[in-house]
This record gives sequence, structure tokens and C-alpha cells, in this order.
Amino acid sequence: MGTEAEHGAAGQEADAPAAVREWADVAPEAARRLLLAAVEAFAERGYHATTTRDIASRAGMSPAALYIHYRTKEELLYRISGIGHEKALSIIDDAAKGPGSPTERLATAVRTFASWHAEHHTTARVIQYELTALAEEHYVHVSNARRRTDRLLRGIIEDGARCGEFAVDDVAATTLAVLSLCVDVARWFSSEGRRTAEEVGEVYADLVLRMVGAGAR
Amino acid sequence: MGTEAEHGAAGQEADAPAAVREWADVAPEAARRLLLAAVEAFAERGYHATTTRDIASRAGMSPAALYIHYRTKEELLYRISGIGHEKALSIIDDAAKGPGSPTERLATAVRTFASWHAEHHTTARVIQYELTALAEEHYVHVSNARRRTDRLLRGIIEDGARCGEFAVDDVAATTLAVLSLCVDVARWFSSEGRRTAEEVGEVYADLVLRMVGAGAR
Repeated sequence: MGTEAEHGAAGQEADAPAAVREWADVAPEAARRLLLAAVEAFAERGYHATTTRDIASRAGMSPAALYIHYRTKEELLYRISGIGHEKALSIIDDAAKGPGSPTERLATAVRTFASWHAEHHTTARVIQYELTALAEEHYVHVSNARRRTDRLLRGIIEDGARCGEFAVDDVAATTLAVLSLCVDVARWFSSEGRRTAEEVGEVYADLVLRMVGAGAR
Repeated sequence: MGTEAEHGAAGQEADAPAAVREWADVAPEAARRLLLAAVEAFAERGYHATTTRDIASRAGMSPAALYIHYRTKEELLYRISGIGHEKALSIIDDAAKGPGSPTERLATAVRTFASWHAEHHTTARVIQYELTALAEEHYVHVSNARRRTDRLLRGIIEDGARCGEFAVDDVAATTLAVLSLCVDVARWFSSEGRRTAEEVGEVYADLVLRMVGAGAR
């Protein structure tokens, strides 16, 4: 929910600089431009209401030119979802394997994960809301990345509980709630809202440390 | 994110008994049947990819019969969204005006709000993800309900902070995070998952009391 001032649902405002960085590894440039166009189209009208013609036209290309890079609309969604999920996984992986106490590692994980969902909110929405549109084998691949992300975060929370830094009643439920809190930033975040992506990350790291009872001992 | 076992995104499993209760006040029966069909269709394919013909056919009716009850597809979405938002508002309103300390009122608000989003997860997803498809005047109405919900929850947290039951650094950000945590239950909850809607409500009430530093004094 959130107040409307902070609530980004009213429009797909441009997060252009973030979007450019996001797909920087996709080559050639035409393939990258098509991914960006697909994210925008899926976010605006939904996957099922979007045609490859819509996507090509947004990218200033012909449908035939699109098929050089992507065989189907689903392949575009899978590329978007795959890149997004790998990025999410790498954020949590870096935090989990990084230096510092469980408190520091959890704070880093939440700060970077929440601010990534703020900065890349349009892509993150597409990834989360269109999961069911993926082909079976693609869904399996993405699910694996989700499970690994979940396991890495749970590991940090377990470490903290084991050494007495955290006081957690239910590690699985707490892990799920922490991930959910961060992912939902993509739904309500607006670049025109009161807080920057970095500020959201800071506030969320603090709230999550409270959820796990950090410093309670 | 969440583990796949708890993650409902893989299918629109039937929450039929909840769905029946949900629209119990809609009459006549044909109008109710059409709302239910619209929720299912929007959840499965998205608002823009759904036609009034799809909705009528799901309800076992002709398109002409649909138009007796709803002039447009948008009117169906607005009815769904309006009823859902009024329900969400009334849940928080009951908790805010109820008896008990801020701690008790916040626990009640979160328990009922989170478990409502679990039980009615299909409807809640449609409401949250299709906000931008509402006509301008309908969006304004729904936004008012959202703002009132936000204000009521913020009031409980402010009460707790004022009397020293809670220790909150940023009331606005905490209110937003609490609402977001509850709303996102609709995204990941599955009726085939490990926890019932009521159990999710219990766990979430406990986590939110930690977020506001209840009992920290």
C-alpha cells in the first residue's frame, strides 16, 4: 500500500540510467534495445497483451529484425527474468560470502537487495508478476536461482542465531519475510517519491536487524 | 522470493471457499459470478489480455448477459478493486478503533491484514498489479481508501511511540514497510504451502512488533 506519494503504481516512470546499466552486458546493441523495449511493454500492458510487433516497434525495429535476436516473446521474458534473477542471486551471494559478522552481512544483503529492487523496479515487477508466463524448463531454471538466493540469506540468519547475535523464533519464516519485504519495494517504489533507492536500503537494513533481534543479547 | 514450496506464483490454485465469502454481498448471483470470473481471468492473463467475452464465457454466460451487469471491463476491475480496498480499510479501521494497547492493536491489525492477503491472494494480486488500468476517477477513489488505510496504521504506530511502548526511528517509513510486508503475502502465498493464512498472520504480527521495538522500553 503506502501513501500515493511514495507509491509508484500510477505510472511507468523512466528509470533510464538504471535501465542502461542493467542490460549493459547484452550484445549486440539491437538485442539490448529489444530487451529494454520488452521490459517497458510487459510492465505497461502485461506479458500476454504484448506482441512481438509491439516490442519491435518500441525498439524502432521491424518484427523480422526482432527474430534475428529472439525466436519468441517468451525468450525475451526468459532473458529478462534470467538476468534479473542472476543479479539478485549475486547480490545476496556477495553479502553472504563477504567479511564481517552476521549482523554486518545481513545489513549489507538487505541494503543492496532492497535498493536494487528500488532502482530497477520496473524490471523487478515484470520478473515477479510474469513468472507464470515462463515455459516449464525456463521456470525450473529461474526457480533454482530463487531457491539458492533463499538458502544464502537463510544461511546468514542461521549464523547469527547460532552465535547468539540474533534471536529468531522461526528462521524459515523470517527469511521469507525479509526477502518479501525487499522484493515488494519494486511494487511501491517511485523515483519521484520521498526517498532514494539508497535511503530505502538503509531504512530496510535497520528494520530487518530489528526483525532478527540483532543486538538483543 | 521465498522457497518454491511456499511460493504461489506457479499457479492460480483455487481459493474457492474464500472467494465465495469474498463477494457474498454482490447481487444478483449473475453479477457475483461475473466478478469471480473476472478475478480469475485477470489473475491468469492480466487485465489488458482479457476480453469481456473471456469473462462471460468463464461465467457460463453470453457477452450480452455480461453487459446487463457491467458496462465495461474497467467497471468489473473497479468493482473488484473497490470491494477489496474497502475490505482492507475496514480491517485496519477495526484494529485501530478496537480496545487494547497500541501493541495489541498493531498485532491485531497485522494479523488480520496479512491473513486476509493470504486467504484472498488471487484477488489481492489483481488489485495490486492492475491499479494503473483503472480509469482516472476510479483510481482517485481507490487512492483515497489506500491513504486512509495508511493513516490509520500510522496512527497506531504513533500512539505506541508516544506512550513509549514502541521505539521507532521513522514512523512513515516503518508504516510503509509494515503495509508492504502484509500486501506482499498475496504474491508468495500458496494454499498448498507450509503455513495456513492464520499462521502467516501470527508470525507476521510477531515480526512487526519487533520492527517497532515493542517491549523495548
